[in-house]
Amino acid sequence: MITRYTSPKAPEPAPERWSNCIVSDGIAYFSGLTSRNADGVTIDGADEYEQTKIIFEKHKALIEAAGGKMADFTKLTIFVTRIQNNKQVWKARAEFFEGDFPACSLVEVSKLAGPDIYVEIEGIAHIGKGAR
Amino acid sequence: MITRYTSPKAPEPAPERWSNCIVSDGIAYFSGLTSRNADGVTIDGADEYEQTKIIFEKHKALIEAAGGKMADFTKLTIFVTRIQNNKQVWKARAEFFEGDFPACSLVEVSKLAGPDIYVEIEGIAHIGKGAR
Amino acid sequence: MITRYTSPKAPEPAPERWSNCIVSDGIAYFSGLTSRNADGVTIDGADEYEQTKIIFEKHKALIEAAGGKMADFTKLTIFVTRIQNNKQVWKARAEFFEGDFPACSLVEVSKLAGPDIYVEIEGIAHIGKGAR
Repeated sequence: MITRYTSPKAPEPAPERWSNCIVSDGIAYFSGLTSRNADGVTIDGADEYEQTKIIFEKHKALIEAAGGKMADFTKLTIFVTRIQNNKQVWKARAEFFEGDFPACSLVEVSKLAGPDIYVEIEGIAHIGKGAR
Repeated sequence: MITRYTSPKAPEPAPERWSNCIVSDGIAYFSGLTSRNADGVTIDGADEYEQTKIIFEKHKALIEAAGGKMADFTKLTIFVTRIQNNKQVWKARAEFFEGDFPACSLVEVSKLAGPDIYVEIEGIAHIGKGAR
Repeated sequence: MITRYTSPKAPEPAPERWSNCIVSDGIAYFSGLTSRNADGVTIDGADEYEQTKIIFEKHKALIEAAGGKMADFTKLTIFVTRIQNNKQVWKARAEFFEGDFPACSLVEVSKLAGPDIYVEIEGIAHIGKGAR
């Protein structure tokens, strides 16, 4: 059955919006997460490197709540608003994965949830299937 | 095997373009659907709330054709052209889901299929796995 | 287990970035691929039709490396920077698929990996499940 997993480290939105992590048939779907905290604000002045680290800490907390690990991620989609800073995103990502990285797309969109949000990352993972 | 599901409520494109709903291994993949009708036009003056309702009516017809229900959706990706109206999208979505909503990303892109199209929504569902 | 598949026809990025094709549970996830060759440049003056053909040749090489075929694709997401040229993308795609095409979204984003890159395509396939 479809199951929602949550973590205190990844604040859920108000009811009737979305779930951060939904699992069915061992496949976990992660919402596009941002660096906003529970108050709806992000760390003042956080750049792409810092925002990406905050986002993957949330993904890590959620996938561990679902019984998985970062190596279980098979796919990421990264939406940014300043693609010229993509190497900052890559640098932060490299702190969370090793070996064969997930498949990934990275594109620049015109706007994300707020002007202080430069990065939004969604993903798919197959729980327990990562080798590492 | 891979199977295409269709509904008279969700017009398919001309041949050799895309399929609205493809199912394999019980997982349904939905194309990015818009509010355009079979004539390729959308309701005159329809805003984000109205367009989103039209889109989810199509998703509902397609997933029911595939033997599923709206609660089977695990993931949505919502592309909009005016993200400042995201609450209108949320309001319409809340009329189609309850309990644990699907995981979701919502980003503003620079253009969709036409200037009258403000919303395009794709999704993934696991047929028969929703609790509701 | 999660397995990475590669092909000499689809250059992989430097380590610690992404994998072009990751398979788990028979589901293949493809990174957003572009028309860039191993030197990081794309064919000079290539338009959407030519870029899309190069991209699907890469997808074809990768899915065949994974033991699959183009008919196994269930979903594509196409990011473009000039949506007014979408028919060129469709024309190239029609050379790689037949019958029931994959589900698909096509949106215009503000920027891709470089100014000469007009198309980026990611996808999901269920290996061996296509009828054709």
